[in-house]
Amino acid sequence: MSLPAYMDDLGRAARAAATAMAAASTAAKNIALLALARRLREAGPALAEANARDLAGAAELSGPLRDRLKLDAKTLATVAEGCEQIAAMPDPVGEITGVKRRPSGISVGQMRVPLGVFGMIYESRPNVTIEAASLAIKSGNACILRGGSEAIHSNLALAEIVAASLEEAGLPRTAVQLVNTTDRAAVGLLISSPQWVDVIIPRGGKGLIERISAEAKVPVIKHLDGNCHSYVDAEVDLEQALRVVDNAKTQKYSPCNATESLLVHAAQARAFLPLIAEIFHAKGVEMRGCGRTCALLPAAVPATEEDWSTEYLAPIISIKVVDSLDEAIVHINRYGSHHTDAILTTNHPNAMRFLREVDSASVMVNASTRFADGFEYGLGAEIGISTDKFHARGPVGLEGLTSMKWVVLGQGEVRG
Amino acid sequence: MSLPAYMDDLGRAARAAATAMAAASTAAKNIALLALARRLREAGPALAEANARDLAGAAELSGPLRDRLKLDAKTLATVAEGCEQIAAMPDPVGEITGVKRRPSGISVGQMRVPLGVFGMIYESRPNVTIEAASLAIKSGNACILRGGSEAIHSNLALAEIVAASLEEAGLPRTAVQLVNTTDRAAVGLLISSPQWVDVIIPRGGKGLIERISAEAKVPVIKHLDGNCHSYVDAEVDLEQALRVVDNAKTQKYSPCNATESLLVHAAQARAFLPLIAEIFHAKGVEMRGCGRTCALLPAAVPATEEDWSTEYLAPIISIKVVDSLDEAIVHINRYGSHHTDAILTTNHPNAMRFLREVDSASVMVNASTRFADGFEYGLGAEIGISTDKFHARGPVGLEGLTSMKWVVLGQGEVRG
Repeated sequence: MSLPAYMDDLGRAARAAATAMAAASTAAKNIALLALARRLREAGPALAEANARDLAGAAELSGPLRDRLKLDAKTLATVAEGCEQIAAMPDPVGEITGVKRRPSGISVGQMRVPLGVFGMIYESRPNVTIEAASLAIKSGNACILRGGSEAIHSNLALAEIVAASLEEAGLPRTAVQLVNTTDRAAVGLLISSPQWVDVIIPRGGKGLIERISAEAKVPVIKHLDGNCHSYVDAEVDLEQALRVVDNAKTQKYSPCNATESLLVHAAQARAFLPLIAEIFHAKGVEMRGCGRTCALLPAAVPATEEDWSTEYLAPIISIKVVDSLDEAIVHINRYGSHHTDAILTTNHPNAMRFLREVDSASVMVNASTRFADGFEYGLGAEIGISTDKFHARGPVGLEGLTSMKWVVLGQGEVRG
Repeated sequence: MSLPAYMDDLGRAARAAATAMAAASTAAKNIALLALARRLREAGPALAEANARDLAGAAELSGPLRDRLKLDAKTLATVAEGCEQIAAMPDPVGEITGVKRRPSGISVGQMRVPLGVFGMIYESRPNVTIEAASLAIKSGNACILRGGSEAIHSNLALAEIVAASLEEAGLPRTAVQLVNTTDRAAVGLLISSPQWVDVIIPRGGKGLIERISAEAKVPVIKHLDGNCHSYVDAEVDLEQALRVVDNAKTQKYSPCNATESLLVHAAQARAFLPLIAEIFHAKGVEMRGCGRTCALLPAAVPATEEDWSTEYLAPIISIKVVDSLDEAIVHINRYGSHHTDAILTTNHPNAMRFLREVDSASVMVNASTRFADGFEYGLGAEIGISTDKFHARGPVGLEGLTSMKWVVLGQGEVRG
């Protein structure tokens, strides 16, 4: 079969499955999720052999990248637990809110319903297959998954486990489908088929996501970079600010919600910068500062214009002294990536202005930017983090995979 | 100046104005709206002359199309009243909802904020300029408007009135900008500039909207056709169903929420169809029926396959007899346009299944499809009606022009 014909078949099957999933009972969806958890824990030689094939094929990959491919008993137990947590969550579908009687006599409200079919494009880690499948099942959507070529055998084996779990619950096997070819043209077809796919969720490097966003003919929930800021205000609890900024930068360097840039009000620069520099220095964090920073910190090197907009994902931080809250807000809105930014302050009006005026998916007062995460926010799970403003913003959980339709309840009203 | 340079200037000014509008006080926004209402009522010869030029240029247009161009005192009073109504509505911006304490100690909620800059592309009616401007002002967005070439002089005069009103309130004149050229290339530039525009809202014929959706590089809130259904169930209050179906079809033929297709359960066909046919016949509505309909109604002509998916916007209706609620739902989801569909029934489980399973922006029980409207739903005003599922669905009011950002309130929490 040609690739376009194959992708059309997947799309047609997904559309049909989406109708069944939208009408599926909460009980059936939870049975599928618990079956999936059980089958993952009991996964036999088929999955192990598939994973071994992927690992053998990835011999040239670096250690950390190979590790992300590995599906050992511990990884499987973790994703199984994730499925159980999603089963335990309330069903988002069918919720009716805001019903109000109108002067005409009709009552108008909104009902939460699935989006339909989502397409997910992701790289190496095969556990994303299960995360996407379990969120699709609970939210009543169908999905078409396109994983990385390095993980194709593992993903196919996992997709078979998902299909068997759906079948066990009396739900369509085709609610979760994995593209069974590593042909890159499949991505192009998936992102340009609004007749089959309602939204595309890419997960991976910035290059992949920019390419998909530029070429997609369907909406994209996209997560570009996380150039996150922590701003130490003029009035501040210094000890608290030190603890939070340290955590925001150094608790882990690779996540998108790690702080990459530190702004300090001039009134606190002399007190705060030498103390945080001592911590950074001890942990081997390179400091790239503005002129005033470098004057205060002998260990800092001068920052270039490019540094202010760079997501390092590494033990490097850019540091700038600012003269006012306004300057901090303007800097963040200009150089940041609208992901997550925090203010450290004891001044209430400043806290409120920062929350309102910083144009980012997550804005924080006196907390580490590392908290920007679906689990920390209580979404239970996260299909991705959106740096867009349209539809879903920030961590996207089950609700981000739904839309609200209008419900009108009448008693024979007509329009005059 | 070249067109791309001009459009970049508009975009840059809009981005700057959007920042000021997002931080603007409710009072300032309302002062601008009330000033706009006053200035519209007092509009002098400049606007009248501009409108006369457009009308003179539109001599070859048909009567109804020319009428839509006309800005007389009555039309201006109506749009002025619309501005006052929007001023009286609560400010959607800054609302914080769902704040919950998390186990880590942080409190997490969501704050409603403007989208940023929207682009609006529309045809002839110049009053849309004021509707878009007033919704932009209240929702704290900036907008770039591109009206029809027939209305260019009226629109430029109206845009000047809007700019003066913004200035009177101390808000940036560039919060609402009108593209001052009728060059079609401006549309292409507007819809492919994600750096300046966050969302495009087209209003006009299906052809225009399909073209914009296919070519846009930014999200589009699109309203395609309204092929709306009324379904008369097996258990029904016949008199009520007659009144509602009559209203849904004949109260006005041109709106997108008029019923275009009638489905009748076989158990009621013999009782219901002759009665509604009598009404339709008296009002000159052409009936195109399935075989069973034609057997019952001598006045009906056979419907073709194409009829089931046609939005007539005219005194024509397609009629089909179905054997079950399931058949009705499948038919609507297949042939409908996911705009608005209604069931007439006294059976509660059937009503609930219809609400859940019909995949449309508005689903109704025992009410006329003509109610699908921002004013009837209590949104106060409507920038458009979305037939998409992504972001906003159905009538889009002030809230559809906003997004929710995450707000985290901490007391120095760090991530472990």
